[in-house]
Amino acid sequence: MSDSPVKLTAENGPDQPPATPELEDLYRGFEKELLVPLWTRIGDLMPQQPVSKAQPHRWEWKHLVELAARSGDLVPVGRGGERRAIALANPSLGGRPYATPTLWAAIQYLMPGEDAPEHRHTQNAFRFVVEGSGVWTVVEGDPVPMRRGDFLPQAGMNWHAHHNSAEQPMAWIDGLDIPFQYDVESQFFDFGREHLSEEEHATPERSRSEQLWGHPGLVPVSQFKASAGSPLLCYRWADTDAALADQLELERAGHPGTVEPGHAVVRYTNPTTAGDVLPTIRVQFHRIAAGVETAPRRETGSSVYQVFDGSGRVTVGEFSWSVQRGDLFVVPSWMPFSVVSEASGSDSDSGALDLFQFSDAPIFSKLNLFREEVGR
Amino acid sequence: MSDSPVKLTAENGPDQPPATPELEDLYRGFEKELLVPLWTRIGDLMPQQPVSKAQPHRWEWKHLVELAARSGDLVPVGRGGERRAIALANPSLGGRPYATPTLWAAIQYLMPGEDAPEHRHTQNAFRFVVEGSGVWTVVEGDPVPMRRGDFLPQAGMNWHAHHNSAEQPMAWIDGLDIPFQYDVESQFFDFGREHLSEEEHATPERSRSEQLWGHPGLVPVSQFKASAGSPLLCYRWADTDAALADQLELERAGHPGTVEPGHAVVRYTNPTTAGDVLPTIRVQFHRIAAGVETAPRRETGSSVYQVFDGSGRVTVGEFSWSVQRGDLFVVPSWMPFSVVSEASGSDSDSGALDLFQFSDAPIFSKLNLFREEVGR
Amino acid sequence: MSDSPVKLTAENGPDQPPATPELEDLYRGFEKELLVPLWTRIGDLMPQQPVSKAQPHRWEWKHLVELAARSGDLVPVGRGGERRAIALANPSLGGRPYATPTLWAAIQYLMPGEDAPEHRHTQNAFRFVVEGSGVWTVVEGDPVPMRRGDFLPQAGMNWHAHHNSAEQPMAWIDGLDIPFQYDVESQFFDFGREHLSEEEHATPERSRSEQLWGHPGLVPVSQFKASAGSPLLCYRWADTDAALADQLELERAGHPGTVEPGHAVVRYTNPTTAGDVLPTIRVQFHRIAAGVETAPRRETGSSVYQVFDGSGRVTVGEFSWSVQRGDLFVVPSWMPFSVVSEASGSDSDSGALDLFQFSDAPIFSKLNLFREEVGR
Amino acid sequence: MSDSPVKLTAENGPDQPPATPELEDLYRGFEKELLVPLWTRIGDLMPQQPVSKAQPHRWEWKHLVELAARSGDLVPVGRGGERRAIALANPSLGGRPYATPTLWAAIQYLMPGEDAPEHRHTQNAFRFVVEGSGVWTVVEGDPVPMRRGDFLPQAGMNWHAHHNSAEQPMAWIDGLDIPFQYDVESQFFDFGREHLSEEEHATPERSRSEQLWGHPGLVPVSQFKASAGSPLLCYRWADTDAALADQLELERAGHPGTVEPGHAVVRYTNPTTAGDVLPTIRVQFHRIAAGVETAPRRETGSSVYQVFDGSGRVTVGEFSWSVQRGDLFVVPSWMPFSVVSEASGSDSDSGALDLFQFSDAPIFSKLNLFREEVGR
Repeated sequence: MSDSPVKLTAENGPDQPPATPELEDLYRGFEKELLVPLWTRIGDLMPQQPVSKAQPHRWEWKHLVELAARSGDLVPVGRGGERRAIALANPSLGGRPYATPTLWAAIQYLMPGEDAPEHRHTQNAFRFVVEGSGVWTVVEGDPVPMRRGDFLPQAGMNWHAHHNSAEQPMAWIDGLDIPFQYDVESQFFDFGREHLSEEEHATPERSRSEQLWGHPGLVPVSQFKASAGSPLLCYRWADTDAALADQLELERAGHPGTVEPGHAVVRYTNPTTAGDVLPTIRVQFHRIAAGVETAPRRETGSSVYQVFDGSGRVTVGEFSWSVQRGDLFVVPSWMPFSVVSEASGSDSDSGALDLFQFSDAPIFSKLNLFREEVGR
Repeated sequence: MSDSPVKLTAENGPDQPPATPELEDLYRGFEKELLVPLWTRIGDLMPQQPVSKAQPHRWEWKHLVELAARSGDLVPVGRGGERRAIALANPSLGGRPYATPTLWAAIQYLMPGEDAPEHRHTQNAFRFVVEGSGVWTVVEGDPVPMRRGDFLPQAGMNWHAHHNSAEQPMAWIDGLDIPFQYDVESQFFDFGREHLSEEEHATPERSRSEQLWGHPGLVPVSQFKASAGSPLLCYRWADTDAALADQLELERAGHPGTVEPGHAVVRYTNPTTAGDVLPTIRVQFHRIAAGVETAPRRETGSSVYQVFDGSGRVTVGEFSWSVQRGDLFVVPSWMPFSVVSEASGSDSDSGALDLFQFSDAPIFSKLNLFREEVGR
Repeated sequence: MSDSPVKLTAENGPDQPPATPELEDLYRGFEKELLVPLWTRIGDLMPQQPVSKAQPHRWEWKHLVELAARSGDLVPVGRGGERRAIALANPSLGGRPYATPTLWAAIQYLMPGEDAPEHRHTQNAFRFVVEGSGVWTVVEGDPVPMRRGDFLPQAGMNWHAHHNSAEQPMAWIDGLDIPFQYDVESQFFDFGREHLSEEEHATPERSRSEQLWGHPGLVPVSQFKASAGSPLLCYRWADTDAALADQLELERAGHPGTVEPGHAVVRYTNPTTAGDVLPTIRVQFHRIAAGVETAPRRETGSSVYQVFDGSGRVTVGEFSWSVQRGDLFVVPSWMPFSVVSEASGSDSDSGALDLFQFSDAPIFSKLNLFREEVGR
Repeated sequence: MSDSPVKLTAENGPDQPPATPELEDLYRGFEKELLVPLWTRIGDLMPQQPVSKAQPHRWEWKHLVELAARSGDLVPVGRGGERRAIALANPSLGGRPYATPTLWAAIQYLMPGEDAPEHRHTQNAFRFVVEGSGVWTVVEGDPVPMRRGDFLPQAGMNWHAHHNSAEQPMAWIDGLDIPFQYDVESQFFDFGREHLSEEEHATPERSRSEQLWGHPGLVPVSQFKASAGSPLLCYRWADTDAALADQLELERAGHPGTVEPGHAVVRYTNPTTAGDVLPTIRVQFHRIAAGVETAPRRETGSSVYQVFDGSGRVTVGEFSWSVQRGDLFVVPSWMPFSVVSEASGSDSDSGALDLFQFSDAPIFSKLNLFREEVGR
């Protein structure tokens, strides 16, 4: 038998040529020359619509936090391992740390006083905080405090480190395009300093990036030029919350604003381009008013969601789960997704379900591959 | 003598052909056929650098307000005249209501209870408020309150009207690209309703456009598409003030932010494109710390400035004036401009000089004609 | 009486305030302070649709050539006057050398052996050749031969000169955005060498720019970057002719291609951007099959046309003329334009009417001011 | 033992936490919850520079053609299998029909009189012809003849079929982004008609797309709008050949043109955008003059090359092969590539080595991931 990596078997079947000895002989020739005929693979390679290798799945926050806390005791943070980050592994992606075929999602955990060492990489990244505070991400020397509801984009090749200045551990989620960059082979990674300077251990209320870029519709003339990733290093919860509340208020007053009844959505954008906040990752925040059910929607590309507040029931393709604060779930490419918000014991008066979402949509948009469909 | 509009005279002079009878005869031929030779006009038409037809000039706010108030008594507002707007007429532009060759600037004045009727036009416009409050601009049915420091862009072909719901008259400035559109002949104008509806007489704290677009870096997914003019209809003073203060604070802490020492500048941008807030007009706000003198700067295209707060001394080419709150002045194309901020009796603690600026820079940028020079 | 440039007269009239002594007094105040109220000027400044200052007009080529030839005898070419160029002066633009409010069009004439000295300027320019050959335009040291039907764009700030290496004089037309740049005051002009080098007097069949950029859909990787003006310095007639013939052939075969029956149009584009060939000037070529009448069309902005071949009857607004080879005519902003091609004694077998057109459309497109209307 | 797809083993090692029973227990928890810690995988997932999963490899054309010809006898072409296409399988990509991690390259073979049925798909594709003629690709009803040296782009979701009207079989290569779209899961595929109409069996010399779009720098105004893929369906060899010859001629005359001495490169572009000819695939053609050795170059992303003419020696990373007409080889991400052209018995007088190249560079460029390095 051939030791070629190519293995072909002549089989009678629909759309296959007759399995004759001549065909077998031809297939041996293909194997020898490292060739594979389209007619043996077309159904898998060129399906009539996306059939995801990934599976819908939900991870419960309580388990993530519990395991992260145990890691806090057992696993030091330092040069080499770089981060105490624990990634979601989609059950149908072979045990690899991929939430979806393109996206990485992890819980990161930092103990009081710890520093995660400085590095930079081509992978685009962000942090999102579902609970707690006390950690500062230091980007190119600019310390950015992280608190519940804050979203911190981290475009590729910016130096960054983390520092926990609080008395308690802190957990948050990291999102990156690691699987995508692994597939296309674009990755560069540089190690920086192992420890931050005194100045970078400072704990200001706001980052310098927010002083420059955090004012609506206003740009600093001295720093203004189009950059692929957002120069605004933190989008604060108070702004996101207000934007979502405003959309629902507009709807109540009879004006356009929501994407469908009871469903407000904002997108985080780069103030230098008005495009997506990161070159490969789209980030959006949803608020679904209490008792509202969204229309099923599917799109090319995959998403990871985290419940920020409230509770509800999520349906993705054939799967359905109850979700509550902190839970994460994935929506693979072209699978219909809908959610119903449930009245809950959350500390939100409104009972709305707040969902943080990130996806690989910019890849599809920029390459003319984005497609979406709403409704049943 | 020829009744042709073309008038040519053969004259001996540098770069001119010998003034012979044959040349005279040729020139009569040119006149008859409506022709003009380049060699008689090149110095004027194609100068070595811009030589503006406009002149630097300052208008004092106190005179503008006093005349506007008298107009309030004598000139009704209504269909036909459309607005009680009184425009700056550059002293060297032939008495036409042009602040500069491309820009219109006017004080507009509305008495208590008055409506300025609805219309729309291709001319891009904005309002800026140096003092007072009480007027609402209603844009496509969305009432936008106007208060000191607010900037309201008004992209071409949006229906708009004004309504004064206060007990006092109110004055503000309007900026438009009327001279530019007059020159290139792009103007359309439609009359709308003479009176606003009850609902549009409402006096909300914020416009609906601010609810949708007024959150930093966040866009409403349901409404998001690139538009030539900003969908955000008001940029509030509190945001502008904070952005300027932040730049000066960054400078004090040793970080980049200002354009030169003591000189903060923000630009108003369109959140759907990150470009200029209006297709033909760039709008910026400057804060010059007390006692600071800016470097002379010149650029292609012209600007109009209004002093928002503080006082100082402005130099434009050969002209120089003291300015204080409300005063307006123009900077013609390629004339060096600098300003020194003076400690003043203003109600600003800081003593900074705050300058609102609008210019025709987008025309130059988009057509590859922008050039600037800093320093002596 | 006031010596202010502003002159205001209170008059009773529609949309005017009552002409009282108080109003007269107010108007004296306006004059003193250099102010003009909108209500006295709105109809002129903000018309309901463009009302052009220019007038449709036709210039006959035979007169242009005859006068240019006489200039060849009387007017030397050299530093200062720079070019033996004779510009069309629209009859309603005050005798200024403006074909339209934004565009300059001139016949240029060079005697055997003459050099027109090198210069560069921000004004965007082109040459188009309706007859003859023998002149080379030398752009940044690259000699470009000019022959009947060739179009040579000349983006702003490229050094250029002309050289006639033939035994006969040669005439062609120059198009520039001189009036536009005069109005907005963006002009820079630099003098170069008075005489070309020996090498630049070379007379190659093709320019170097054509070697790099003249291959359809192919760009030279070593030189490829987006530039505001086209790096291709000559668009040859053979290509234009073939492109027009192909559109009419597609139409005959029942396929899309023409803009309307019997009317083919190509646009010259910049191969580094696919946009207009010059930042401010759109250039197109029309072929109207024999006996075809085009639908009236109007658009914002103005055009200049030259008849390249055939003859016909042109209608612009209220004006109508017979035209033949070389004749030029202007179409002011928003005036309806149509043409009927007539069977003619031209050397074209087809009897089609070939029209070269240039316009200021990029200014309108980039500033969101372009509007067009087809049909009656 | 866990039946989770996640398998983790605590091991002592650099950058790994101490392998204690507690750590083992933690890892069991990760497996149960479908989690993978970064510290166990970072070196593989986030390398310091791209380490390609693919391997440099060369396929000899003579073997490809021989096997394709045998397939012509044994494998019918029809609905289901769709194409008699035989793909290159990179030796280190597990036997999958992937030339590189993102690109598919195949030899396609059509017997006299055969039709390959109509379909369309999101995968971007092209054909390139190294020898022969007689096949027409029919795109949206437009028959496009294919001859030696022609390049036919086929942007996603255009209906297309092939027809061989010659007396002989014909072979050519197909390039697609199948692996990329498989990874990101963007694929849609629609079946069209099984047989072409009589009209589509027509064998015109040129396609209608060439009549519209095949003229340098000229676009058809009736059809002009930006499209993601090129509307020009064939780039003919005569143009490519001339463009390459011109670059080498410019070099000989002392002018810029080549990318390095003796090395001419053209890129195929979309005439509606001036961007890459396909949204995800960059296509270039190289001519390396006889005896020239190119500098080693590496870039993010992968390429497939086919020798069009001449012969030479290719070096990719640690691999090196002699190549001649028709041979294909792959250059994985970030591997240095160089080539030396050898005097050969080719029918090219010049002895130059002509290389056709396609790569995934647009993916990297648009997502801000492109990086390249030249030299040793």
